[in-house]
Amino acid sequence: MSGKSADVIPEIVIGRLPLYLRALRRLQNDRRRVTSSQELGERLEISSAQIRKDLSHFGGFGKQGTGYQVEFLIERLEAVLHVNKEWLVAVVGAGNLGSAISQYRGFQDRGFRIAHLFDISPNKIGARLGDFVVRPLDSLETTIRSEGIRIAMLAVPAENAQSVADQLVAAGIKAILNYAPININVPDQVQIQYIDPVTHLQRMTYYLDD
Amino acid sequence: MSGKSADVIPEIVIGRLPLYLRALRRLQNDRRRVTSSQELGERLEISSAQIRKDLSHFGGFGKQGTGYQVEFLIERLEAVLHVNKEWLVAVVGAGNLGSAISQYRGFQDRGFRIAHLFDISPNKIGARLGDFVVRPLDSLETTIRSEGIRIAMLAVPAENAQSVADQLVAAGIKAILNYAPININVPDQVQIQYIDPVTHLQRMTYYLDD
Repeated sequence: MSGKSADVIPEIVIGRLPLYLRALRRLQNDRRRVTSSQELGERLEISSAQIRKDLSHFGGFGKQGTGYQVEFLIERLEAVLHVNKEWLVAVVGAGNLGSAISQYRGFQDRGFRIAHLFDISPNKIGARLGDFVVRPLDSLETTIRSEGIRIAMLAVPAENAQSVADQLVAAGIKAILNYAPININVPDQVQIQYIDPVTHLQRMTYYLDD
Repeated sequence: MSGKSADVIPEIVIGRLPLYLRALRRLQNDRRRVTSSQELGERLEISSAQIRKDLSHFGGFGKQGTGYQVEFLIERLEAVLHVNKEWLVAVVGAGNLGSAISQYRGFQDRGFRIAHLFDISPNKIGARLGDFVVRPLDSLETTIRSEGIRIAMLAVPAENAQSVADQLVAAGIKAILNYAPININVPDQVQIQYIDPVTHLQRMTYYLDD
């Protein structure tokens, strides 16, 4: 980070940076070299003023009137978000969802690689799922520590999610993406994010006629 | 809705209601009959003042000092969010992710039921996946119209997402939950929400040491 690196950037701004990065990567795929806050804004339905303000937290990315260099802005955002490297990720839960997550091809070129898939069920341990052989949950801590894994995705039933999260934290995991439909308590220094499709659906049905 | 029903409620407030509902349902599972904004706030890491303010948009749910009746508040929130009924949902994309989504058991008691699973690939059409026989994408419009389906989940590759979304809108779909890692344009009267795990992961790596 450069420029105003002493700022504490609001979380809501940080939350938009991955959206900017994703849109820029698509422009790059389309062989575009220059874009503007107007164009990004239209694609993302975020105001161009908001985009300029968000990006200004991290120093001057574009010159007034000349737009943003796509490749340069991608590099800078990847550096800001620490995804100019590949993070190893552990997936816990080898049911339908964990299996789909571990085989999802969209992680790898965006900074993440699924390293291992864990489960507690004797029926699943040892099974081959795509590129993975399901590992026993009781080997989690050893594996995570020896490989320096700091990120985990949690795809276990709601009733097990807190206890597995506790194990993950004890093993040294610093960021958890939780797919179980339940809120989880983690220490302040551990990041947690949630994916619960029902909350998104319910947000939309509010606006649909009953 | 009662009380201040003439308000236009900010979207960010609507977005928190499903979290309140989910937390309340867990309290109900634990046979709790009364809760408070303090308790909900601790579970959700949202301030109790915010929770009281959010709920006040929909009329008086609790008496000062006596807390909230769990069952009553659940009923009211379900009515506000229009999930005191069951919505049929079409899933498009019968790959790993669409398959996992269609078999996910967490929808049904929260207002939604997966009705059909569609795909474009001749290799998948007609295949049995859990309770579903994969239907051809070209039967989408007929099925959606005849069954009055208004919600769809999109689990197709990014490069097909916009064209399938266009088909969904043309068929009468009013709300789309998009799992493809790309922004999609829909008419103003169509709701869209996104699930992209990488954006959540990148939000967390910002806070991890490089």
